[in-house]
Amino acid sequence: MTVKSSLRDRRRLQTSREIQRAALTLALRHGHDSVTTEAIAAEAGISQRTFFNYYLNKDAAIIGNAPSFDDDTVARFRESSGPLLADLLQALRRLLSNSDLDRSTSQLIDRLLVRSPDLLPIFYGSLKRLRDQIADLAVMRLGEDARADAELLAEAISHALADTFRIWANDDGMSADSIVDIAAAKLQVLRGLLTPGVQPIPAASTVRPDTQAMTSTAAAPIRP
Amino acid sequence: MTVKSSLRDRRRLQTSREIQRAALTLALRHGHDSVTTEAIAAEAGISQRTFFNYYLNKDAAIIGNAPSFDDDTVARFRESSGPLLADLLQALRRLLSNSDLDRSTSQLIDRLLVRSPDLLPIFYGSLKRLRDQIADLAVMRLGEDARADAELLAEAISHALADTFRIWANDDGMSADSIVDIAAAKLQVLRGLLTPGVQPIPAASTVRPDTQAMTSTAAAPIRP
Repeated sequence: MTVKSSLRDRRRLQTSREIQRAALTLALRHGHDSVTTEAIAAEAGISQRTFFNYYLNKDAAIIGNAPSFDDDTVARFRESSGPLLADLLQALRRLLSNSDLDRSTSQLIDRLLVRSPDLLPIFYGSLKRLRDQIADLAVMRLGEDARADAELLAEAISHALADTFRIWANDDGMSADSIVDIAAAKLQVLRGLLTPGVQPIPAASTVRPDTQAMTSTAAAPIRP
Repeated sequence: MTVKSSLRDRRRLQTSREIQRAALTLALRHGHDSVTTEAIAAEAGISQRTFFNYYLNKDAAIIGNAPSFDDDTVARFRESSGPLLADLLQALRRLLSNSDLDRSTSQLIDRLLVRSPDLLPIFYGSLKRLRDQIADLAVMRLGEDARADAELLAEAISHALADTFRIWANDDGMSADSIVDIAAAKLQVLRGLLTPGVQPIPAASTVRPDTQAMTSTAAAPIRP
């Protein structure tokens, strides 16, 4: 459904991105506290009224719009009889390929968080929205009784994905198509670490060696 | 080291708990925004000056002091050659048995979060502190290069633990001693869900059936 988006949809996405970039640029330049919606609108070359057509407030603009699973992806997931983890990863692949990721925006967010780690909580909300969407998908297959299990799984998946996003944002040589595969490899390392009675050897080799060093920073929030 | 705490330590812990209970009671009665450190001090029967000897601000008092691994537990963990997961769970058992958990405080927090879910982020900080401590332990064994893997593992463990805390807080029949074991069972369910190519059946039976229903609420933050 969203795969072939209309010109209007694409323009809307582009404008929301431009507002986000303006918000991030100003927060980096003057500090988060000094930024106003008025200044963001001016920087983006739009009216404040238009700003509020896109975002509720300045923090929403800084976070940007989180991608969400489109109806077609949800329907495919629901109808599939494949393995749960593989189907969830496939849904995430479709989500990312539909969202036309912008590396430079992710880099701005990274730089802002390095300068102002106290802004991390506002980005956690964005990660939580993705986590909740993944949990909702998993519940479709596991049943409502298993919501806590689905949430734990979704927590692990969204964390692995957020980590991989950070690697991708800072590695021009890494393609966006490989994000889900690298996150999936991280989840298999986790599975190994969760094996009881086994002395695990960290499977660093499952993650690209040149990006491994970057994963040693604190968990990054997801950014669309 | 902390296992046999001095009378002074125990008094200090008791006072910090009383201040926390006062803060939670006032937030439940009048709403979080209306609570002041002055009112909390008055409710707890202490001076405002004493309040600030225990907590930086009202939110810190509402969250309470997060438990941390004592030196002896860290030393035992470092020296053990046992399986990583088992050793982490053992360290958590010692942490919880040292922290003299207070169910009624946990219930107050639960009630406050049901009424004001917008306060969740202030509790996330507390959960993150525990997560970071677990990750630091795991890094001692896996090495600094594997910090991202250690953090993913710590994320899963702290989430499972927080979930189990919520079950324990609302189930008078559940002993605090079983918290880590139930969290460990949840982690094995997660491990099953992470198995590639397998159609997982949610292992609801690994979690006490009478508490299963409670796990269907959103992830709860940890509370000491």
